[in-house]
Amino acid sequence: MITVIAFDADDTLWHNESLYNMTQSRFAELLAPYHPPQEVEQRLYETEVRNLNFYGYGVKSVTLSMIETAIELSEGRVCGKEIQEIINFARWMLNEPIELLDGVEQTVVDLSKMYTLMVITKGDLFDQESKVARSGLADYFTHVEIVSEKTPEVYRMLLEKHNIAPEQFLMAGNSVPSDVLPIVDIGGQAVHIPYHITWQHEIVANNPTKPQDYFTLERISQLPGLIAEINK
Amino acid sequence: MITVIAFDADDTLWHNESLYNMTQSRFAELLAPYHPPQEVEQRLYETEVRNLNFYGYGVKSVTLSMIETAIELSEGRVCGKEIQEIINFARWMLNEPIELLDGVEQTVVDLSKMYTLMVITKGDLFDQESKVARSGLADYFTHVEIVSEKTPEVYRMLLEKHNIAPEQFLMAGNSVPSDVLPIVDIGGQAVHIPYHITWQHEIVANNPTKPQDYFTLERISQLPGLIAEINK
Repeated sequence: MITVIAFDADDTLWHNESLYNMTQSRFAELLAPYHPPQEVEQRLYETEVRNLNFYGYGVKSVTLSMIETAIELSEGRVCGKEIQEIINFARWMLNEPIELLDGVEQTVVDLSKMYTLMVITKGDLFDQESKVARSGLADYFTHVEIVSEKTPEVYRMLLEKHNIAPEQFLMAGNSVPSDVLPIVDIGGQAVHIPYHITWQHEIVANNPTKPQDYFTLERISQLPGLIAEINK
Repeated sequence: MITVIAFDADDTLWHNESLYNMTQSRFAELLAPYHPPQEVEQRLYETEVRNLNFYGYGVKSVTLSMIETAIELSEGRVCGKEIQEIINFARWMLNEPIELLDGVEQTVVDLSKMYTLMVITKGDLFDQESKVARSGLADYFTHVEIVSEKTPEVYRMLLEKHNIAPEQFLMAGNSVPSDVLPIVDIGGQAVHIPYHITWQHEIVANNPTKPQDYFTLERISQLPGLIAEINK
């Protein structure tokens, strides 16, 4: 019997990856005098991955990686004005209004009447708290947990902290490795809701683990129906 | 009767402000070709405070503020190599071994035998988690809470979450506005243990509460004795 539902935040409740994508394109454009765009994006990606262990996730981390990439690719010739441009990208990302995904508001409002709702999100504490506050949805969530990694161990500790048994817990998110597989691992229910909607069927079953291990939905608005089915 | 003791982390359990101070001096030295050191430090402080609302606390935030200040003070003439130097300051701060303050280890070990211990710290999630892990003290703390602000409301929510009554709660830390006054406000016991350096922003000019509202200790090793007194 599911009684607690947790949501991932970025690209599950609101658009996020689209902002990063736009920033990456602008960054590649900015560095066009030094290197071809495709190479710039590849190098930025490599720098970001390399820096995860130093900086963790989030806008500030990405911004520091962009600055580092700009210095490397320009062999130190990048100027103060160009670096300021990169800092402006960060400010734009941090201040951009939160755009909820289709159906999110209604689904969260409806589910909050019957279940305990949580947000469990990875990333920068300050930034994620600000986004939850700006989303207008904060009052519907009993707990907001911001974590630096989404491992089975981290989820297990969160459930213990809130006295939630895995059997009563369901997590919904757009990332299979972060929101789905660790939950399957600890014995909870997981729902994958991909960010880029390409699926035709309501429930798709082509995934690395056994198909019955977790659910896939095309839209968040299908979640209440699925949970009602599970709890029948 | 005190049963739960919470510690601030930076400059309460381990040295931190000293790293920032060293970085500030190096930063002022780096910008010496453009501006006198004292002016550089003042401008950096202004930028940091202005950016708190965008970035929150932590090394990444300070680094972005240093870069911004360098661009402003050099009127865009700062070069890639100099910006790289600033990024190197960040890496140095993030990788520097944790240096516990005198008496911390023994005090934490001793208190953990009789009380539930917590860490409540402000700052960057990724950075603070890493510091707790590297401190070697993680196993002594039942809860580690990293928050973006230390307001009475935030403390109230933390105590509710962990089912702790204010009367059984004592907080020890080096910052009067962050670790002491909000605790007095919610009806807990607070102990101020000053660090030899305090960031300008954390200094309270005229102590608004009455002196008997909280305790001040010179060293953390005096804490077990004080708690024994309170609990008598």
